[in-house]
Amino acid sequence: MRLAMIEDKTLPLEELEPVYLDRGIFFGDGVYEVLRSYNGKIFAFQEHLQRFARSLNEIQITGIDIDQIRAKVQKSFDAAGIADAKIYFHITRGSGPRDHVGCADLKPNFFLTVSELPDATVEKAKGIAVSTHPDWRWKRCDIKSLNLLANVLARMDAAKKGCTEAIFVDESGFITEGAASAFFAIFGKQLQTTPITANILPSITRKYVLDAGKNIGLEIIEKSFTPQQSSQADELFIAVTTKDIVPVVKFDDKVIANGRPGQYTKLLIQKFQEFTM
Amino acid sequence: MRLAMIEDKTLPLEELEPVYLDRGIFFGDGVYEVLRSYNGKIFAFQEHLQRFARSLNEIQITGIDIDQIRAKVQKSFDAAGIADAKIYFHITRGSGPRDHVGCADLKPNFFLTVSELPDATVEKAKGIAVSTHPDWRWKRCDIKSLNLLANVLARMDAAKKGCTEAIFVDESGFITEGAASAFFAIFGKQLQTTPITANILPSITRKYVLDAGKNIGLEIIEKSFTPQQSSQADELFIAVTTKDIVPVVKFDDKVIANGRPGQYTKLLIQKFQEFTM
Repeated sequence: MRLAMIEDKTLPLEELEPVYLDRGIFFGDGVYEVLRSYNGKIFAFQEHLQRFARSLNEIQITGIDIDQIRAKVQKSFDAAGIADAKIYFHITRGSGPRDHVGCADLKPNFFLTVSELPDATVEKAKGIAVSTHPDWRWKRCDIKSLNLLANVLARMDAAKKGCTEAIFVDESGFITEGAASAFFAIFGKQLQTTPITANILPSITRKYVLDAGKNIGLEIIEKSFTPQQSSQADELFIAVTTKDIVPVVKFDDKVIANGRPGQYTKLLIQKFQEFTM
Repeated sequence: MRLAMIEDKTLPLEELEPVYLDRGIFFGDGVYEVLRSYNGKIFAFQEHLQRFARSLNEIQITGIDIDQIRAKVQKSFDAAGIADAKIYFHITRGSGPRDHVGCADLKPNFFLTVSELPDATVEKAKGIAVSTHPDWRWKRCDIKSLNLLANVLARMDAAKKGCTEAIFVDESGFITEGAASAFFAIFGKQLQTTPITANILPSITRKYVLDAGKNIGLEIIEKSFTPQQSSQADELFIAVTTKDIVPVVKFDDKVIANGRPGQYTKLLIQKFQEFTM
């Protein structure tokens, strides 16, 4: 008789709820998005849906109606009634017996949560410390997939060092991005970040940051740089959907810009707000 | 109010069953093993448990008693009463709100299935076709983790080409291993496979294959080789727990050894059986 065991409980395999056979858990065979709202309005909704559609396409999960996803997200956001909300959702290829090549009739699983945004006021005002970590991730980081163990391990390492974010460094010695953020440096009047052609996620917040940078007269340089260069930057910051721009005041053991958020970073935080109104 | 949505159904986040908040699905934050039995006896049980303990340690999931895992596996295997069984189990870091760095009081989740082995008789007798795929996996393939999307995508690609297994080729042009198997070539009286120092899983079946190879007088060469070299091999085969040795008779578009399982491969299949009695 086919059996399953959950913790200490044995049951016939056929009686398992499908969620236990989700390919999301067996393989990380799914993709996700994180959205946020500002004051009751979902930010960059269309861009996130477009990126989600691309992720689905890249891993060949087919038959998803993006307009239906949009409606589900909007419906649950409205029902939650949280003005500044964090919205997470994922779709996996479906549930079924564990087999790398799933059967043809798999039905994708949709899952979503809406909750309050974690408060980032202090982080934004005082800045955060970050630490570098080897970039152990796979070679398709352009896909926002559920394969995030490298990100988890890097973040755990950062936390042990008293840091809020881990910054990935690839085998060539160049920074790619943060474990859950894009990474930026300011040298003089130049705003520099890794080019989107590298093995990074096409960050939506990154795009708005670069627009804000242009708006305040910074020159945008999309070119890889090293930890050593970072530690000599005038200013550093990360960008992430849930917190937009967060100043970095310590990079590994090096204090940046006297340990206080830099002037351009503060200006960018202000300018970013204009996009969210 | 915090909300969750599963398919079309909305519910308060607090009412979600923990399985929906498993870090296995959010991050692939867990490790697994696959065991098999031969005629009522679990094969290489201790080696699999040792590898599992190592995987847990590498991703810092702590407090797991391996003897308890052993007892659970044995108990469910005995209860299933399947002589030639496939046993899959995983442990994830636990369930909780999605956050890369989990809270300190996470309780790991254990999940196991026992089912009949898929029949590999025809594959072993006739051999299989394999196709190469870029090795997109992360840099810690020594850990048997739930981050397997690259393996799934490679297997899907192989299936489209009418192949049973995908063989990974790294950025340097060398074969690492199969999407769910170790890969071997025979040149004359030399049995060659990727060294364990590469970014591969320390396969348990691999170890037994090399022992069997020595037993039949083959010279063991643990050295990386290319697809081009593979296509010129006298014999090719893969090794995987659930099927032990399976001959490869087609490599990409190249027919190997007249399209029939080679003599040494057949001898290795016989010799392997001695380990399983």
